[in-house]
Amino acid sequence: MIRNVPDFPKKGIMFRDITTLLKDQDSFRKSADALYDFSKDLHIDKVVGIDSRGFIFGGILANKLGIGFVLVRKPGKLPAETLSQSYSLEYGEDTLEIHKDSITPGDRILLHDDLLATGGTARAACDLIEKAGGIIVQVSFIIELAFLGGKDKFKDYVVNRLVTYDSE
Amino acid sequence: MIRNVPDFPKKGIMFRDITTLLKDQDSFRKSADALYDFSKDLHIDKVVGIDSRGFIFGGILANKLGIGFVLVRKPGKLPAETLSQSYSLEYGEDTLEIHKDSITPGDRILLHDDLLATGGTARAACDLIEKAGGIIVQVSFIIELAFLGGKDKFKDYVVNRLVTYDSE
Repeated sequence: MIRNVPDFPKKGIMFRDITTLLKDQDSFRKSADALYDFSKDLHIDKVVGIDSRGFIFGGILANKLGIGFVLVRKPGKLPAETLSQSYSLEYGEDTLEIHKDSITPGDRILLHDDLLATGGTARAACDLIEKAGGIIVQVSFIIELAFLGGKDKFKDYVVNRLVTYDSE
Repeated sequence: MIRNVPDFPKKGIMFRDITTLLKDQDSFRKSADALYDFSKDLHIDKVVGIDSRGFIFGGILANKLGIGFVLVRKPGKLPAETLSQSYSLEYGEDTLEIHKDSITPGDRILLHDDLLATGGTARAACDLIEKAGGIIVQVSFIIELAFLGGKDKFKDYVVNRLVTYDSE
């Protein structure tokens, strides 16, 4: 149910588009159930979702687990006091923020994003969560682009994903 | 559970921050349940959520209703063929997009966003949904800033929200 879109966002990139999975009621429900099954016995206190596609299944997971949901966002989006973490991109760098009071020290955290590519974004989110005193129990994705090797950035964590692509 | 943040995003604006509601497991669950109760008997086919905070409860609603979820996003974010709709802001204009194939003509749609302010964004999303052939059955928000009068843009629809602010 994941659509392949060639040359997006730029020439030579095969984009894996989950919107076709989201709009289909069966695959949408089954994906949520599978992510929930991964995490339901881990005594998680909060789910953290990464802006913005990570908010979709991140919010659903928190709701299904009956726990709170926390946002990691681009700079300037969160209104109260934040912690921030910069990370390298192919060209230049980017920054993520989390509300300082969003995590209680010792909280057991599930981090969710839709896509594991090089892993820079999710790794920065892990660093933010740990700065805030959280304990990362699981990092979950819909898609892993395994040929980019992003998983190496998460050797200390349990990483789960629904689908793996071994080549572009 | 909604936090007041003065002077965000600019001086003189009182920002209503739902992140404190999201991180609290009881208010997060109760909010989702209340939105679900509004919509469960309306025979809705798909939920449409607006980028990006609309993805949180939008996704949860679609999951609880057992139906598909569709994204309305800023330009250039959706990879396949899109429909687009521009709308006026206080200064200048902005544009929203939806995937052309995301809605089957005749689909009964619930549109969700977190905040109803002047209503420009949600109104543009309604126009997009109708361009794609959808029938809007309900428009739901967490917060309505009633003093901005945004509800007037939705006279043809059933509008629901959890919390109303009558003044800044």
